[in-house]
Amino acid sequence: MTSLRSIDAATGEPFGEPFENHGIGEVAAACLAAEGAFDAYRAIDPARRADFLERIGEEIVALGDDLIVTAMRESGLPRMRLEGERGRTVGQLRLFADVVRQGGWAGLRIDPALPDRTPPRPDLRLRMIPLGPVAVFGASNFPLAFSTAGGDTASALAAGCPVVVKGHPAHPATGAMVARAIRAAIAATGMPEGTFNHLVGSGNDLGAALVQDPRIAAVGFTGSRGGGLALVALAQARPVPIPVYAEMASINPVIMLPGALAARGAEMGTAFIGSLTLGAGQFCTNPGLALAIEGAGLDAFLAAAGEALSGHAPAPMLTGGIHAAYEKGVAALAGHPKVEAVAQGTVDEAFARGQAALFSTDAASFIADATLGHEVFGAASLLVRCRDEAELLDVLAHLEGQLTVTLQLDAGDTPLAARLIPLLERKTGRILANGWPTGVEVTHAMVHGGPYPATSDARTTSVGSLAIDRFLRPVSYQNLPADLLPPALRDDGAAGWPRLVDGKPAGGAR
Amino acid sequence: MTSLRSIDAATGEPFGEPFENHGIGEVAAACLAAEGAFDAYRAIDPARRADFLERIGEEIVALGDDLIVTAMRESGLPRMRLEGERGRTVGQLRLFADVVRQGGWAGLRIDPALPDRTPPRPDLRLRMIPLGPVAVFGASNFPLAFSTAGGDTASALAAGCPVVVKGHPAHPATGAMVARAIRAAIAATGMPEGTFNHLVGSGNDLGAALVQDPRIAAVGFTGSRGGGLALVALAQARPVPIPVYAEMASINPVIMLPGALAARGAEMGTAFIGSLTLGAGQFCTNPGLALAIEGAGLDAFLAAAGEALSGHAPAPMLTGGIHAAYEKGVAALAGHPKVEAVAQGTVDEAFARGQAALFSTDAASFIADATLGHEVFGAASLLVRCRDEAELLDVLAHLEGQLTVTLQLDAGDTPLAARLIPLLERKTGRILANGWPTGVEVTHAMVHGGPYPATSDARTTSVGSLAIDRFLRPVSYQNLPADLLPPALRDDGAAGWPRLVDGKPAGGAR
Repeated sequence: MTSLRSIDAATGEPFGEPFENHGIGEVAAACLAAEGAFDAYRAIDPARRADFLERIGEEIVALGDDLIVTAMRESGLPRMRLEGERGRTVGQLRLFADVVRQGGWAGLRIDPALPDRTPPRPDLRLRMIPLGPVAVFGASNFPLAFSTAGGDTASALAAGCPVVVKGHPAHPATGAMVARAIRAAIAATGMPEGTFNHLVGSGNDLGAALVQDPRIAAVGFTGSRGGGLALVALAQARPVPIPVYAEMASINPVIMLPGALAARGAEMGTAFIGSLTLGAGQFCTNPGLALAIEGAGLDAFLAAAGEALSGHAPAPMLTGGIHAAYEKGVAALAGHPKVEAVAQGTVDEAFARGQAALFSTDAASFIADATLGHEVFGAASLLVRCRDEAELLDVLAHLEGQLTVTLQLDAGDTPLAARLIPLLERKTGRILANGWPTGVEVTHAMVHGGPYPATSDARTTSVGSLAIDRFLRPVSYQNLPADLLPPALRDDGAAGWPRLVDGKPAGGAR
Repeated sequence: MTSLRSIDAATGEPFGEPFENHGIGEVAAACLAAEGAFDAYRAIDPARRADFLERIGEEIVALGDDLIVTAMRESGLPRMRLEGERGRTVGQLRLFADVVRQGGWAGLRIDPALPDRTPPRPDLRLRMIPLGPVAVFGASNFPLAFSTAGGDTASALAAGCPVVVKGHPAHPATGAMVARAIRAAIAATGMPEGTFNHLVGSGNDLGAALVQDPRIAAVGFTGSRGGGLALVALAQARPVPIPVYAEMASINPVIMLPGALAARGAEMGTAFIGSLTLGAGQFCTNPGLALAIEGAGLDAFLAAAGEALSGHAPAPMLTGGIHAAYEKGVAALAGHPKVEAVAQGTVDEAFARGQAALFSTDAASFIADATLGHEVFGAASLLVRCRDEAELLDVLAHLEGQLTVTLQLDAGDTPLAARLIPLLERKTGRILANGWPTGVEVTHAMVHGGPYPATSDARTTSVGSLAIDRFLRPVSYQNLPADLLPPALRDDGAAGWPRLVDGKPAGGAR
């Protein structure tokens, strides 16, 4: 029996009690439990399911400061960030509770029978049903909001799917506390026990066995490109393939248009470094690429960015492994013959401090070497200098899919921006104007997704209320007697839930 | 330069002028044209896009009786069926035109800025955009409604995606006529020329090149399991993987519950054979499997089914290849040690006549040999005799995913049916009561889809208005100036289109 320890992110030293590494047997048992809970859980009145989601949030809050202190130590993230993240986690659960109550997710549609038509039209009724047990792989960089009780878990539970979480080995103690909170919510609200299951382990075998288990119906993942693609390959090779929602790699280009650069290049330089270094650069939406046309505005941007960066002291990164990968990525940029260093943050010889860095290259070199477009997870970014609009467009056309693209623009930039937007829509899930990509609102109109390799499925989002749709599929009922129809599809069913009747809206939200 | 001829389905003889087989060069040119048309086509006012869809229908009708006669000769299907199918094709285009006009497909969502919140919430607006050029592989068994201008083409065009059709080699003349109608509609309504592209060819290389073309963003396919899985594998192996919507294999179980069998076993036997032999059994929803508990009701069913079948004269099948595959499948059943013949239709030595056949086996044998659950495309079916409810449930639990499952039930069967439905929901996209699976309404609440291997993506349907969602993905716009927002997302945009504002409905349909 192997075990797993918490590691203090600031020192690299283990602390606390060991956690038993789960094996293949525990995977099978967890998936069996989830499968066993599925029909009961999905049949529970949605209002009660919503109460359960809210109760999870309450139980997480009830863990008190212990949770924050534990997560701080395991992740190296500061108190304010983790308190904010806890609020975000609880808010996310409340959002999905509201969504469940409003019923738009059920996608109810009724086409009444037309007995006098030739041939007669049958009665047809459609609703969305949950896919089945969902495997969730938490992210290291959001130990609360995108881990054990994070967005994937919340949206899967909201959809009516039991969840099997593979806890992230970078924060086992935090994960165990949150799992306890979820179990307490299950007990308090009378949900089936197998609705939530928690696996602990540090190797890849555990995750592979989870994705291959025949009872698993879908996978949510947030992490690296390599990790996500490995899970996708496993899921596709199953006797019955299943969908994988992997949120993977994005360098979140920031395009600084000429008018904006001329008007406020220096200001943008400072703000850019703020976004770049936030949370030690460990965000999916970290701005790893900046694009601009050469000129005085860009010079002012670079001067201000360099000044802001050179005084930046590094925070501990999430794990030693992440730090090592960051250093390797930075070294590759630093040693690239076509890349030059613009500025670097200060050095700290303490454990796992990643020195922030800004590099630059020219458009032709960027286009010529696809590796320059690969994500370096951490506070490093690459500025691509373009000679003119044509070169800027050429760079954009060569970009891979992204979670976000940001436009910095002033009124005079509107014609150029308008030309860019159709291209940007095809490259990303979210287009921002005059902001910075870090900071992802958990709301209805958010898309945290995007074309490959940003995610493995661009048709969805992993943040925001639309994420519930990932775990649903439609079923149609033809001429079923009323007493065999799902209650929400009966003539008198689902008071207040929106329905399409003959394609026309009949009350409620969606 | 190779060429392709029309084949008279009733005789196997070629007729008419040869069609040039397209090659790799034509694939690339078609995809380039589709890509070139994409931004212009998707930017066109949706009302005009709807007019275009309706115009395609009008142009198809304007082809007159030539189209029907040509399709009859190439497919062997009778006039009434093809006239009905033409009506269905035109109705399908009108349905999607209505859907496009109503705007629910755009999924508009607005979360207004909250400038006074700490931190301030940005303005977020979401819409669905089309994926890009779509490759469509038409079906042999619906030369009109699921081929060149069929459901995949109609829903992709409705979504704003240009289409590249690989015409089915079993009906090249029909396909060429319909392609001409679509081109006429493009010219008449001023759509970009590359909005529709038509490839002709009999080999698999053409289709492979189409799916691998980097400009193709999604694939719609209706056909065999082997064909569908080959396209899925190609699509997943691309540098940028794309979704494949393959509608493949289903045996559409009909479950005859004891009460119904006792009350009307003989009547059901006759009706079952009617559904089995309709269109020479060449429907995706053909009832290839029947399940019942042994008893006097089942005996009456079998007697009536045997009588109805024994007088059934075969119609020509769609192609010699389909007929050969059918004969092979029937021979395998006939030679299976655990399978016995119940009855057969009459023999016709003319070209490609598939003798209809009903076989039976017991539950244990069915469960023991998965090949007995594989589709035999044509008018052959297998009855599985169960000793009791437990055995019936066991057989159902072992079934693969299906397009449809049908329950024949009387009032007394309700408790058993209620127990079955949660299981059936997980096995299929559509549950029917007291009907037969053949006959698929093109409407809002239809699901023509289902778990693997019925389709490659159970989250969708290939028939009905929900099919448009297959070709859309969400994009979020954060703090974009009004003049850069898509018109439908501006404060004064999209009169009458439904929107969610802060998660609450604000007018319109969905």
